[in-house]
Amino acid sequence: MTDLLYLDDLTVGQRFLSGTHQLDEAQIKAFAGQFDPQPFHLDDEAAKGTLFGGLAASGWHTAAVTMKLLVGGGAPIAGGIIGGGGEIKWPAPTRPGDLLQVESEIVEIVPSKSRPDRGMVTMRSQTKNQNGQVVQEFAAKLVVPRRPAKPEA
Amino acid sequence: MTDLLYLDDLTVGQRFLSGTHQLDEAQIKAFAGQFDPQPFHLDDEAAKGTLFGGLAASGWHTAAVTMKLLVGGGAPIAGGIIGGGGEIKWPAPTRPGDLLQVESEIVEIVPSKSRPDRGMVTMRSQTKNQNGQVVQEFAAKLVVPRRPAKPEA
Repeated sequence: MTDLLYLDDLTVGQRFLSGTHQLDEAQIKAFAGQFDPQPFHLDDEAAKGTLFGGLAASGWHTAAVTMKLLVGGGAPIAGGIIGGGGEIKWPAPTRPGDLLQVESEIVEIVPSKSRPDRGMVTMRSQTKNQNGQVVQEFAAKLVVPRRPAKPEA
Repeated sequence: MTDLLYLDDLTVGQRFLSGTHQLDEAQIKAFAGQFDPQPFHLDDEAAKGTLFGGLAASGWHTAAVTMKLLVGGGAPIAGGIIGGGGEIKWPAPTRPGDLLQVESEIVEIVPSKSRPDRGMVTMRSQTKNQNGQVVQEFAAKLVVPRRPAKPEA
């Protein structure tokens, strides 16, 4: 297991690569049925006549799978991945069969002035399919703790 | 059923109110187990020692439930709710028992220059709990079709 990184361990430009997750039609339809029941996420035939031109995953499904990959080792941050929000984009649809992987980069580190035990870190995560096409980009603002001081011996 | 709105029907300042969805502990843990398996989304005791101070839903779960409420009548837009992305914020945690409702407002309408049959609309959606506290804000950039021309008689 990768050592977890505290604020003190992070540097701008540092990069992380997640494992992979393969999406299939059943997963896409199950998520959409529960949270985003629109024809282009539920029915391949109906999707052909839409902007998507075929069955596509809900953007929120792509976001959820991205989070799973980050939590599963794609962003080894101490204290967990706790985000206050960020800018999200879906430049291309996620399709059945897509093998997703997340590439992340630390782009900004701002130590907190009011809370010396933590800082705010901006991490840009690109979710790519098996062809290297970016299906999601998310610039997350994360709360990251400083390494706790070692007790004196 | 509400009439679906085309680009021609939308005005800046127009507002929509969704139905409601009640989140419970089982839903929070099921979503987190699949997509965001961190202690503060899975275990009430473990969550007490974290920034959240108790069990909280994954932000992506709040986003997914918000989408369900928008698709279920909270944003009656013709052609469906198709977003290219936007800025998301989670200013307060979503808790077990929270009754969520989404208030949306059209904040910008930009007809497409290259595609006269559509435009880009920015819709700001605030997801509130039963106390009126905002648990999510999302400014979505949506693709909205113009009303098709009526065939000549």
